[in-house]
Amino acid sequence: MILTVTLNTALDITYRVPSLRPHASHRVSDVTERPGGKGINVARVLAALGHEVTVTGFAGGTTGRILRDRLTEVPGVRDALVPVSGATRRTVAVVDGRSGGTTQLNEPGPTITVAEWSAFQGAYQDLLASASAVALCGSLPPGVPVGAYAGLVRTARAAGVPVLLDTSGAALRRGVAGRPDILKPNAEELAELTGFHEPLRATQDARRRGAGAVVASLGAQGLLALTPEGRWRAAPPAPLHGNPTGAGDSVVAGLLSALVEHRPWPDRLSRAAALSAATVLSPTAGEFDHPAYENLLPRITVTPEANAA
Amino acid sequence: MILTVTLNTALDITYRVPSLRPHASHRVSDVTERPGGKGINVARVLAALGHEVTVTGFAGGTTGRILRDRLTEVPGVRDALVPVSGATRRTVAVVDGRSGGTTQLNEPGPTITVAEWSAFQGAYQDLLASASAVALCGSLPPGVPVGAYAGLVRTARAAGVPVLLDTSGAALRRGVAGRPDILKPNAEELAELTGFHEPLRATQDARRRGAGAVVASLGAQGLLALTPEGRWRAAPPAPLHGNPTGAGDSVVAGLLSALVEHRPWPDRLSRAAALSAATVLSPTAGEFDHPAYENLLPRITVTPEANAA
Repeated sequence: MILTVTLNTALDITYRVPSLRPHASHRVSDVTERPGGKGINVARVLAALGHEVTVTGFAGGTTGRILRDRLTEVPGVRDALVPVSGATRRTVAVVDGRSGGTTQLNEPGPTITVAEWSAFQGAYQDLLASASAVALCGSLPPGVPVGAYAGLVRTARAAGVPVLLDTSGAALRRGVAGRPDILKPNAEELAELTGFHEPLRATQDARRRGAGAVVASLGAQGLLALTPEGRWRAAPPAPLHGNPTGAGDSVVAGLLSALVEHRPWPDRLSRAAALSAATVLSPTAGEFDHPAYENLLPRITVTPEANAA
Repeated sequence: MILTVTLNTALDITYRVPSLRPHASHRVSDVTERPGGKGINVARVLAALGHEVTVTGFAGGTTGRILRDRLTEVPGVRDALVPVSGATRRTVAVVDGRSGGTTQLNEPGPTITVAEWSAFQGAYQDLLASASAVALCGSLPPGVPVGAYAGLVRTARAAGVPVLLDTSGAALRRGVAGRPDILKPNAEELAELTGFHEPLRATQDARRRGAGAVVASLGAQGLLALTPEGRWRAAPPAPLHGNPTGAGDSVVAGLLSALVEHRPWPDRLSRAAALSAATVLSPTAGEFDHPAYENLLPRITVTPEANAA
C-alpha cells in the first residue's frame, strides 16, 4: 500500500454564497463537508486510481470523529489516524457564486502533546513496514516540532521506502534536509525556500538542499522536474480554466502511483500533469474528472529541459 | 420561568483574522464556539440578570450535540430543545483584527419534518404552563411553515402568557398577524415590513398590523416604543462605539425581564437600552458588560414621543 501522512487533518467545509462582501451578512445557500488535509486528498485520488492507500496523522474531538466517519465512506482508503485529545481543525472555503473565486479560512489545528507525537512516530514506523511509498503532506499542527518532517523522511529512508515531501515554510526548509526522494513545491513555496523567483534556478537550488528529485508545480506552466534520470517540463496541450484547489495533491498522487508501478520519470510526469489538469477542470473542487484525465493523459507534452544559464 | 424559543438554533463560530480579503487564503488566529441563535442569546442575558430561563426549539446532529453540551455550562438556563434528525446549523463570524468589522456566514439550518414540527408544538404548549413570558426569536429553519410564529403567538395568548416576537421577512409579516404583545424589530426589519423608512411612521404602521406594543431598536438612535401606556424614546447619554452583535437580543432580554417584574414601560425601556448599550461596549461579541450596564442604567434618557405629523 501507499501511505499518506497528514499531521494537520481537517474537516473541509465549503460554503456557496452569491458574492462575498467583507463586513456584510451572508446566507449560505449550499454547505458541503468532507475529510481534508493534503495527505487525505492525495489518498482519495490514489484510491480512485485503484491503489490501496493508508492514511495516518492525527484526529481528535467531534470534528475528528466526523472526519473518521466520512473516511469510512471512501472505498480503498484505510484509516490509521492516531487519536489525540485536541479537536481536528476545520477549514472553511467560501465560494463566490458570481466570480467563482474562493476565500479560504483555515483553523490552526489542535496542540499535539509530546506523548501523542511519540505515539504517532511509533505508528508511522509500524506502517512503513508494509508501505511501497509514503507522502508527507501539509502543515504541522501546534506542538509538533518544526523539524518533524526531516525525522519522518529519515525513518522512511532507513526503512527503504521512497518518500515524497509536500509542505511549506519552515517545515519545508527543515524537512528537505532529511533528503526526501521527491520534493513537490509550488512556485510560491519554491521561491520562499530558495529566495529565487526564476523557476529553473529555484528548482536547482531546492535539489541542492537535499532532495533526490524536485517536481515544481508552476500552475498554468505545468510541471518542472529535476531528477537523477534527467530534467523535464510537462504541460497540458492548452492553458486550463477552472478551480486549482487540490491540483497539487493530484500531482503528488500521480507521481507516487506511477513510482510504485515502476514507471520512468516522463510517465510519472505525464500522469501527474494529466491528473492535475483534470482536477482544475472538475466541477467539484478537489476532485478530478475521470474522462478528462483519460482524454488528457496522451496529450501531455513532456519535453527535456536544458541546463540553467 | 421565562421561555425563549429558537427554532433555528446555531453553533456560533467566531474566527479572528488580521484582515479578510476575498479570494485569498487566511490562517485563523483564534477560534471560539458557543451555543447561538437569537433565543439562546436572549436566555443567556436573562440568566445573567438572575432569571430562570428555559430554552426550546430544535437541535440535532453533531453540531446540535455540541450546542447542548455547551448549554449545560450556562448556569440558570434549562435545555428543553426538541431533538431533530437534521444537523443544527453553524454560523461563522469572521472578525477583522484591523478594522474590527465582522463578516457573517449563516448556514440555512436543517429541514424540519412534519412530525418534528408537531412534536415541538406539543412541547411548547406544555412549557407555556409554567412560563411567565415567552420570546419567539429568529429565522425559521426549512420545513417549518412560514406562518409558524402566528400560531405560536396565538397559543401563548390562549395560555395567558405575554409573548414577544423578534424575527424578520415573511416570518415577521405573517407572525405579527397573530397579535403578539410585543414586537421588537430593528430599523431594517421595520422598513421591510411596512415599506416606511421614517421610524415613527413605520412603528405606527407595524402596531396597526396587530402588535400590542412595538419597540423598534434604531441602533445609535436608541429605542422607539409605541405601547398601550404611551410612546417613548430611550437612548444612552452619548453615542456608543463597539460591536453591535447581540444588542437586539439584549433589548429583548431587558424588556421581558422587566415585564415579568411588573415594571412600567419606561423602566422596561431603560433596562433594555442599558443592556443593549452594555452589549455594544463589551469586548466579547454578544456578551454584555455588567459594570457598564449598572453604570448606564440610571443614565438612560426616556422621553415621551409626540404623535407623528
